[in-house]
This record gives sequence, structure tokens and C-alpha cells, in this order.
Amino acid sequence: MSSSFGVHLKITIFGQSHSEAVGVVIDGLPAGESIDMERVQRFLERRAPGRNAYSTSRKEGDIPRMLSGLFDGKTCGAPLCAVIENTNTNPKDYALLKDMPRPGHADYTAWVKYGASNDYRGGGHFSGRLTAPLCFAGAVCIQILERRGIHIGAHILSVHNITDTPFDPVAVNKKTLRDVTEKEFPVLNDNTGAEMRTAIAEAKNNMDSVGGIVECAIAGLPVGIGEPIFDGLESRLSAALFAIPAVKGVEFGEGFRSTALFGSENNDAFFYDVNGQVQTKTNHHGGILGGISSGMPLLFRAAFKPTPSIASEQESISLSRQENTSLRIIGRHDPCIVPRAVPCVEAAAAVALLDMML
Amino acid sequence: MSSSFGVHLKITIFGQSHSEAVGVVIDGLPAGESIDMERVQRFLERRAPGRNAYSTSRKEGDIPRMLSGLFDGKTCGAPLCAVIENTNTNPKDYALLKDMPRPGHADYTAWVKYGASNDYRGGGHFSGRLTAPLCFAGAVCIQILERRGIHIGAHILSVHNITDTPFDPVAVNKKTLRDVTEKEFPVLNDNTGAEMRTAIAEAKNNMDSVGGIVECAIAGLPVGIGEPIFDGLESRLSAALFAIPAVKGVEFGEGFRSTALFGSENNDAFFYDVNGQVQTKTNHHGGILGGISSGMPLLFRAAFKPTPSIASEQESISLSRQENTSLRIIGRHDPCIVPRAVPCVEAAAAVALLDMML
Amino acid sequence: MSSSFGVHLKITIFGQSHSEAVGVVIDGLPAGESIDMERVQRFLERRAPGRNAYSTSRKEGDIPRMLSGLFDGKTCGAPLCAVIENTNTNPKDYALLKDMPRPGHADYTAWVKYGASNDYRGGGHFSGRLTAPLCFAGAVCIQILERRGIHIGAHILSVHNITDTPFDPVAVNKKTLRDVTEKEFPVLNDNTGAEMRTAIAEAKNNMDSVGGIVECAIAGLPVGIGEPIFDGLESRLSAALFAIPAVKGVEFGEGFRSTALFGSENNDAFFYDVNGQVQTKTNHHGGILGGISSGMPLLFRAAFKPTPSIASEQESISLSRQENTSLRIIGRHDPCIVPRAVPCVEAAAAVALLDMML
Amino acid sequence: MSSSFGVHLKITIFGQSHSEAVGVVIDGLPAGESIDMERVQRFLERRAPGRNAYSTSRKEGDIPRMLSGLFDGKTCGAPLCAVIENTNTNPKDYALLKDMPRPGHADYTAWVKYGASNDYRGGGHFSGRLTAPLCFAGAVCIQILERRGIHIGAHILSVHNITDTPFDPVAVNKKTLRDVTEKEFPVLNDNTGAEMRTAIAEAKNNMDSVGGIVECAIAGLPVGIGEPIFDGLESRLSAALFAIPAVKGVEFGEGFRSTALFGSENNDAFFYDVNGQVQTKTNHHGGILGGISSGMPLLFRAAFKPTPSIASEQESISLSRQENTSLRIIGRHDPCIVPRAVPCVEAAAAVALLDMML
Repeated sequence: MSSSFGVHLKITIFGQSHSEAVGVVIDGLPAGESIDMERVQRFLERRAPGRNAYSTSRKEGDIPRMLSGLFDGKTCGAPLCAVIENTNTNPKDYALLKDMPRPGHADYTAWVKYGASNDYRGGGHFSGRLTAPLCFAGAVCIQILERRGIHIGAHILSVHNITDTPFDPVAVNKKTLRDVTEKEFPVLNDNTGAEMRTAIAEAKNNMDSVGGIVECAIAGLPVGIGEPIFDGLESRLSAALFAIPAVKGVEFGEGFRSTALFGSENNDAFFYDVNGQVQTKTNHHGGILGGISSGMPLLFRAAFKPTPSIASEQESISLSRQENTSLRIIGRHDPCIVPRAVPCVEAAAAVALLDMML
Repeated sequence: MSSSFGVHLKITIFGQSHSEAVGVVIDGLPAGESIDMERVQRFLERRAPGRNAYSTSRKEGDIPRMLSGLFDGKTCGAPLCAVIENTNTNPKDYALLKDMPRPGHADYTAWVKYGASNDYRGGGHFSGRLTAPLCFAGAVCIQILERRGIHIGAHILSVHNITDTPFDPVAVNKKTLRDVTEKEFPVLNDNTGAEMRTAIAEAKNNMDSVGGIVECAIAGLPVGIGEPIFDGLESRLSAALFAIPAVKGVEFGEGFRSTALFGSENNDAFFYDVNGQVQTKTNHHGGILGGISSGMPLLFRAAFKPTPSIASEQESISLSRQENTSLRIIGRHDPCIVPRAVPCVEAAAAVALLDMML
Repeated sequence: MSSSFGVHLKITIFGQSHSEAVGVVIDGLPAGESIDMERVQRFLERRAPGRNAYSTSRKEGDIPRMLSGLFDGKTCGAPLCAVIENTNTNPKDYALLKDMPRPGHADYTAWVKYGASNDYRGGGHFSGRLTAPLCFAGAVCIQILERRGIHIGAHILSVHNITDTPFDPVAVNKKTLRDVTEKEFPVLNDNTGAEMRTAIAEAKNNMDSVGGIVECAIAGLPVGIGEPIFDGLESRLSAALFAIPAVKGVEFGEGFRSTALFGSENNDAFFYDVNGQVQTKTNHHGGILGGISSGMPLLFRAAFKPTPSIASEQESISLSRQENTSLRIIGRHDPCIVPRAVPCVEAAAAVALLDMML
Repeated sequence: MSSSFGVHLKITIFGQSHSEAVGVVIDGLPAGESIDMERVQRFLERRAPGRNAYSTSRKEGDIPRMLSGLFDGKTCGAPLCAVIENTNTNPKDYALLKDMPRPGHADYTAWVKYGASNDYRGGGHFSGRLTAPLCFAGAVCIQILERRGIHIGAHILSVHNITDTPFDPVAVNKKTLRDVTEKEFPVLNDNTGAEMRTAIAEAKNNMDSVGGIVECAIAGLPVGIGEPIFDGLESRLSAALFAIPAVKGVEFGEGFRSTALFGSENNDAFFYDVNGQVQTKTNHHGGILGGISSGMPLLFRAAFKPTPSIASEQESISLSRQENTSLRIIGRHDPCIVPRAVPCVEAAAAVALLDMML
């Protein structure tokens, strides 16, 4: 059991890549919140496949149908259920994979765990397709958070070895976040973005793939959100982020880089600003102290491994014949999932954050 | 609320730095498990303060008293409660801090969250002291895991800019782990260890501090442990690891480095070994695919920021006077907490892992 | 938040009486379990409205659509989601109730809790309609439990002041349970059943309603299911049972009657039967000792209040005008919900029990 | 695992009858709440054994030691841990019971569940002794609830076949509750109380025991507490109440008696009182509609079976010899646990209620 997250706001994700539908139940939303479905739809489109050269050509309408939880366009206190049909499935693409697990995928581990009944088609419940309902839940939470003055936005910090300008950890704000998330290719430096696209196209041409890092900021978060020890912001956010397939690392503030700083460099001095608000001069701590928000922008990064599905031939095994073999993956795959992962990161953060605030 | 972790095995940590005692309740342990209290004690001593030049001089006996859960030296199915008294407390060291939050600490965020009743003495419930009961719980879980053939061990991968040899991700095994965890300063390369100690001593002399990275491996884990989406091994392990104060980043397998690899480099080819076991030739995935153990060694790293408590003067604020001021921290602090953090990392991993296996 | 239940097997119920659909997500089902959808359908029909004179004339097809979690007719380890469309809704029946809360219903408390956004139509998320997805979940769990030798069945023990023969607490078995649950009107004594039907018809003619008691037995339960203190069988089963609207009391074994017995009467003597199995000579304890199953049949009763929706005029208030008024409920209602509640009781028990066994 | 309860306020109970100590961790208490330890102590004394003729002669000081969670007499936001030592244990009283399970007790089911490591002494973790930490937690919660205008009180409604005056379901208030809970033998009608004492004394003389019913009321509860479906007040309260050993039934409002009423009798008419507050003319619903508090007094009853430990000889089995035998229980036992159960019922209700209000 695994597909639920949250304490006060509980989301439950269901579906497989090739089941009838994927969807999500969101339980615990405050009543009376308007949900702008057009904005939800635009958010889902940032994740949706098939939009351009660097993503899979599998096209899905990804139009969520709301089964419950809304009344006259507002949340009514009852659990909200949204369903997205799976319409464009090619199960024959995956027939081979029943026997030959793809390197870097969950095919083998799921086969061991669930046995002969495992739904291997397209990765089943482990498919990146399941981030569609996650994004739906995130889009709903983002609207509620914004009404409370909290803004979440992410950009592509790196693809392979090409790195975008990072967020300014002190100055990042609502406008920065809105500007970058409205971009078709969300980077701060569009020249770098062009290089990233080239690198992705090259990887595709080489029947290969690349990974990258998504950096996310949350502006407007009040002081005092989070709990000590096991339910600190880092624990809750990382638990949600590692639910996104391909995430292999998460860091907050300076993260791994802080390990090479002296305490005197890494500590952030408190001061009263001109409005009498407590701030820190720098923000190496990434807006979290003791697991609790400090009032400074919250900053974190998620590392995405290169897409494991690549077109070139790979070594694998035949489970039925119990022998080594080689595998060529057919089907539609992203040479780099990082661009589509950006809204997923925002969604995971929004879900975890709203849960902690209710 | 925050101080509980786990679903099948639930641990609840209590205590403040200067309360009567700290402790832990462990609920859900299988009945009939012998607990070797001498080994538990040795494990606690790896974390205990005051043992050498590079740790705080606060000495605690750290002898846990077992209040419940054992019968004739074995777990009896009832919750196990262990209490460690706080005997060597100097509250006067902290009187100043009631008013002046230490940079990089939870003093300010806890003050906002809990108000005038916050137990500011020594960081209260946010103190590193709370890793003593975590280590107790981990020491118990480690014995149970070992009886199932699973071995956990960690070493200091880096201190400041000095880096130890990493674990061999394919070959790391029970012996590697036992050897390194038995060392007084747990590194694979003792020459590097000597340099690290020097760097720590220098930081102390400079009234400063340094951070570092702990690398942990789990050998002997069977295939199929973990759940999809929100309860994958990465989600659960990271949630437990970020409960350790000063952890600012967690990565699995290649982690952040995987983002600069091509898919063809990062994918790990499956093969049948001579015993007919499925293995992978390399282990960039760190033993986890789709959130589920693959049977290869599980590998992860946790980044520790430099200790925020440093002896040199720092800028801060006076909460009562609402003005900027400077602060000099008195009291006993580690110039580098990484050596003492090694067993904490093992303990957090053990607790999260046993919970997922029950 | 409230609509989830279970630890190892988690069910999440969604929908309102007049939303697009109602449904349930079941997370944690073991993989590889065949689900006989015809049997599920028959189970749902026991609860379905509109089948006869003593139930509401609202007819729903109540055909669940499986969105996920099955592969080739078996559970695949991923969450199972089933949706039942709401097709036969008459919102105009409920327009009045927006302003005038029905006595004995959740209209008023939901209005206070959720405010203007409360979905008042037909009781919204509080409607008895939500027992349809509960019964779906129960029907699935019952098939899995039966494969493990465990059989659940319930009968109408009383309607108003007419009482059926109770189950024999020692001898009740799989055959007893199958026989009674296959009846169109599930009582042990059909003569009594005929009297009950007459009493229900009379109540309807009098524009009134009656309540009753459902008695449930679980045969074949092994010894040792359940946990001490807060997760005993009584705690878990009662928590699930009180989720059924109109349940106002739950008792196990002798229940309230045991309070008038002496210990020497109520205690059940242990003995070894001819097969060397431990049994008790009597079964006042209802198969549960210390919250844990004893191996004897598990027996409990749930008290259902008379349906609060009655056709005769009642006193109530106008929330908009803030004045006392009288109310005549239009719409379709059961003069006695007890017959349709029988499978709901079985379903709630099955869900709670399977959760504790996984 | 089983010994934790609550979502926002989590209590974890530990200890066995004959372990070093019993205790409780309370996580999630609001910071800044004064705890009057003298009142806590008086509350514990209502439950404490050895005070008079009708309770066990095992005397325990039952003085809780506070290990954490308080600072200057107020809750500080960190988990509160209280420990009560087990000082007056007679393990030899129980030596026989290792082999011969007492009828009506958890000895047999615990032996099956935990095997040879089960702590059989005095019932281990299943002992009524574990209600001491429950009462501690309840005493703390009661003080916090009273500060919010909510008062909880219970009385002995019946012992064997002798019945006290029930609470007036509409008029019961703070004063009623305070008056009855301050009595040494908490009944509304002291003459009836005298008869009850006689009945208990007779049972003791006959080497037998009697049970009874505790009725509890909660006054001052605001409208809107509780959640739909699985987390309604009935579900949460009953889950907590069945954690008390010997409880075999729980009912709310009219409970089982409502099944013999017509809807027109059982429905409670809403009206605006002279202060413009919504009330109901009668209170058959016991203050809960749809799982949510209605603003009327909350009323429920818990049925306690007769104490299973009786002095007369009983039939049982020898687990080691696998044969039938007879058993005579030595040791100290209550001929009726109902008087000592009264504060336990209040405590369970307080813990469940405060959890739902936070």
C-alpha cells in the first residue's frame, strides 16, 4: 500500500498506464474554495505528453472529469475525485516487456513483488502517467495556496551538463515564479534553454537520453509551518518528491554544497528589516530551520536521472527462459523528462505543503 | 505533531535537551526477538558526546533504561520503551538564547511556533540530543534486520573538502560494513580520515565548524521491499533521514551525479549470475527501482551542513528588544557533527527499513 | 477528512448523493486475487434501492465500472478504483432542504461545518448512497476472505419490536451464513420475517418509519487476529460500523446483556475438543478476548435507528429566516433501512477484518 | 501494533502489568497549556486500585513522573511523556497462569499471538493496569477541553440489575457533571448507589463478580466537531472506548433502544431557543448527527462485562500438557470494575474528542 499521501489533506492516486483511467481522490480540502478549471487544465498541459519534439509522441487529452467534491464550482468539504481516461494506449508496444525487464525501470522489481498478476503494460502503476493525477491534485492545491499568498514555481536548473541561472535565494518572489512558469520551456536564461533543447535533441538522435535538475522555490510562506523531527518540511517534501519517478536526489537550500562551507559561511544572520520583520541576510538554509519555515523563500532541488527508456539496444534478461538476452525498447518515450517534470515538482510540493498548513 | 514515524513499526521520540529524560517508544516489534543490550550500548557510544577532541565536551552516560516491552531479554509484542536520563545539563549556558536566536538553529522558528512556552534550553525538542533515542531504536532494529541477513553500515564520505573512497556499489557487503563501522573514525581510507580530523581540529581552533557527507549501504536486502508512488524506499528513507538535525540533502545511487550521465551510461544491465540470481552489472540505481529494492546493495548519501553553533561572534537579533544585535554562543558544541552522525544515519535507515519489511 | 479507513488495506470513499458518481479506491489488496464480478454485482443488489415495497423507489443501476487495479480479472497490486454513476437523481426533491434541515439527519451539522458550499442535495456526502461503494469494497474483501476460509453473514435480528432467532453463538458456521444471506429477506425464522415486513408496511402507511438490529457472525476466523489496546477487533470493527449512517450502537458477544450476568455465568470455559483444538464451551465473549480473535465465531450486533426521513409533517427551522417552521419531506425514502443495511454491515466487517489480517 | 491512538493528538501507551513501569506519550498537545498536576493526581486516584472494599487490594502510588513536554508547568509543544512505576507486583501470583489461560481473559489469545515470549504476568500489556496511563492522558486533555468550555463526566448507570437515574439528555450540564464526578461512588441516586455496593459485596462473598454500564455526557461541545463516514464522533469515540478492557458494547443517544421507536418518536425537532441558538427539543440523537456534533449534550453508554477474574474454581486447559483442567485464580481482583472504570471512560472520551478538535 503506497498510493496515499498526507495527514490532514490526503491524496490517493490510482490507475495504471494502460488501465481504463488514472485519477486521484483528494480528501480534506477546505470547503468553499473556488477551483478555476481552466487554470487546472493549463497546469496539466505543462505536463502533458506529445506537445513537442522533446517529449513522447503519445498524446492524451488529459481532460479530468470531476466525479465528486465540487458544488457550484466550489469545494464542498467532501472528497474531490477527478478521473483522466487512458485513451491512447498501445499495449502491443509492451508485449515484449512482459518477459524482458527494461534496465532502470520498475519492471523487474514489480514482477518480483506482484508476480504473474503484475500489470506490466507501460510500467503499470509505476508509469510516469501517474504524475497526471498528481499534477491535478497539485493544481488544485496551488490555487488554494495562492489565495493564502503562497506561490510555488520551478525551473529547469540543468539538463545534462548545461546549467541555468539559479533562483536568487533571497529575492525570488511571486513575479519571478509566475514569469518562469508561464514559459513554454521554463528556464531563467533562455539562451541556456536553447542549449538544453539542443542537447535533448542530440540525445534523441543518438537513441539516448539525458537527465537534469529541477529547482523549485516557494515564496510567501509564513513562519512556523512544519513540525519537529519526523514531520519537518524536508521530510514531508522529500517524501512527496521521491514519489515522482526518476527522482534520485533532493536537497534544500545549499544542500550538498553546504558540506564544503564553514559554519561561519553557511549560517544566515538574522536581522529586523525596515518593516520590523525578521529576515536572514543570506538564505543558505533554504527557508527551513529545524524542519519549520523561517519566512524566507523555501528552496529545493530535485535530481532526475536520464530517462531509462532509450531506443538503443540494451542488455537484459528473459524471465521466462531465465537467460541473458538483449532488448530494444519500442514505444514512445521522452529523451528527457525534465521539462515535463517541472510541474510535477511544483505539484508534489503544493500537496505536501497544503497538507502541513491545514 | 511530528515525533512519530512508521506504519507497521511505529517509533515515537520524546524529550527535550534539558527535560528530565529523552526516550523512545517502539511499537510493532515482532515478539521473540532477543535484544543484546551490550551491542545496543556500543551502538549508542558511537553517537555519544564527549568521547574525543572533535565532539562536544558534554558527557552523558546515555545508559538506556528499559521500561517495557521486554520479557526475559526478548521482545514480548508489547511496545518497548527506553528512557535515557538527562544528567549533565547546563541550563545557564542557554539563558541568553531565550532572547537571541542562534543563526542556523531552530531557535527562532520554534519561538514563533510555540510562543512563550517554547523550551528554548539547548534547542529543546529540536536538539541533536534527540538522536540518542533514535539511535536506540535503530540499534534494536539493526539486530532484528541482521537476523534476517540484512546489514547496514555507513562511513564518513567527506568532511569539508576532503573525500573518502566511496563504497563499491556492486561489491559492498557485510564484511565491508562491519569493518568500517567498528572503526573509531569510520572511513574506508584511514589516511583521508587523518586529514579529516585535522580539518575538524582546525575549524575548532578557528572557532568555526565544518560539515560533510555520510554514505550508507545496506547489503543483503531481498528484492521486493518497498511500495509504489508515495511509499517507495526513497520516500520512506529520506523522510527518516531528514529527521536528523543538519541533514540538508539526500540522494540514492548516483543521485545528483546521474543528472550528467546519458541514459546509456546510467542504466544498469540485468543479468543472471552463476547462481541463477538476477543482478545488475553496475549499480547506478543504488539498489532501488520504482521505489522497490532490486536485490543489489542499497546506497545513499546524506549531506550534513556545518554545525551552526560556532564560537565566533555572529549577527542576530534580540526578540525582546526587537533590534539587531550580536551573539556569542557559549556552551559545548561539536566543530563537526559528521562523525557522531554516522550511527544516526544507520539508525534512521534501520527504522525505516524494518517498518517496510514487517 | 474522514473518508479513508484502514492501515494495510486502505479504502477511500468518495461521492455525494447527487454528484456525478460515487466510488471507492481500495489500496493494499494482495496481488493475484480473482474478483468474480457477478458475485460482486449480486452483493450490491442486496443493498440496491427500488427492489421492493419496503425500500425507496429511487432506482439505480449500480453497475460499478472498474477504472484500475485489475489485470486479466485479477488484482494486480495497484489500487483498485470502482465508480458507480449517479443516474437517477431528483435534485428538485431537495431544494427545500437547503433551508430546512431534516430532523435526525446531518443537514444541520453539515451546514454548520461546510457553510454555504455544503452540497445539501440528498444529504451530499452523508447520504446512505455512499454505502454503495462501501458494499463494493466489502464484496471484494469477502471474496478474498472466503478464499482464506473466513465467512461473514448477517441477518435482521429485529425490526421495531419483532425479534428473529439469534445466531447460535457456538454452532454458527459457513452454511448458516450462506443460507441466510441468500434469502431475499434475511432472517432465520421466515415467519418472524413476515411479521417484520408487515410492521414496515404499516409504518409506511402511517407516514412513519421503524428501526432494528442487524446481527452479524464471522465463521472460520483463526486465533490471533487483532491487536491490543486501540486496535483490538472491537475498536476496528466498531469504527467501521459506525460509518454506516443510522448506526447508533454496536455490541460484541453478549454485549449489553453481559452487564446483568455474574462472572461465573459470562466466562467461557476453555477445553480441548476431540481434534485437539482449543475451544470454549459457550461463547459469551463473541469470539474476541483482549481485542484478539479466540477462534470461536465472532458475533456482533449493530443498532439502526428508525429512518429519519418520514413523510409526516415535522417541526424544524428555516436557516435563512432564522425562525421555527414545519417541514414535510418529499422524495423517496425507506420506511426501514434495516433490510438494505444487512450487506452494509457485512461489508464494513469485511473491510475492517481484511485490513487487520494483511 | 496497536498502542497508539489519534491523528492530530497522538497518544502512545506502553507498559505491562509487571514491567518496570507503564506510561504514555502525548504528541500534538497545543503549546502553552497549564497542567494542574494536583487535579491530574486526583483524577488518577478515582481509577487507582486499593481504595476500598470493592476493588483489588493491589496498591500502587500511581504518581506519574513527567519526563518531557512541560516547561515551567506548561506544555511546550514537544511530546509529553509520563511514567508510572510498577512497584507493587506479585509475579508469583501469576506463575500458574503461564500454563492455564484464565477464562474471559486475553491469556490464551496473547499466547497464540506472541508465543513463548508473551509476558503473561498479570495479563501483560492487556492488563487493566494500562488504563492508568490512559487516565493520565485523559486528565491532561480534560483540563484543555474545560478551558474551551467543554465538560465531560460519567456515572455508574447500572451494576448487575440495579440501575441509576440516567442523565437528562437535554438538561445535563457542567454542574451535573462536576457534582457526580466528585462523588466517591459516582451515581446520581445515592440510594441506588448503596444497593450497587451491596451487590458488589455479595458477588465478592460468593467468589463471583458483576458488570455494569457507565453513562457519559459531554456538555458544552460546539456544533461541527467530527467528520463524515469513517471519522464521525461515534467511530472515533467507540474506537477509544473499546480500548478499555471489559467494554463489550457502546451506544450513543438512544442507542439500542432507538430500534424500538418509530421515526416520529426518535426524531428530534429543531428549534431556535430564546437566544437564537439552534437546539433540539429532545435529544434521542445523543448530540451527534451524521457523525458531527449538533450542539446538544453528547451522550453515550459503555457496557462492562463482569470481571473475568473470579475466585471460584473454573474449567480451563493446560497448554503444556494439552489437556483439560480446572483453575483457581489467586491474586487481587475487583469483584466489579465499573466504579474504577468511570474515569477511564471519561479519559477515553477526552482523548478522542480533543484529537478531533485540534
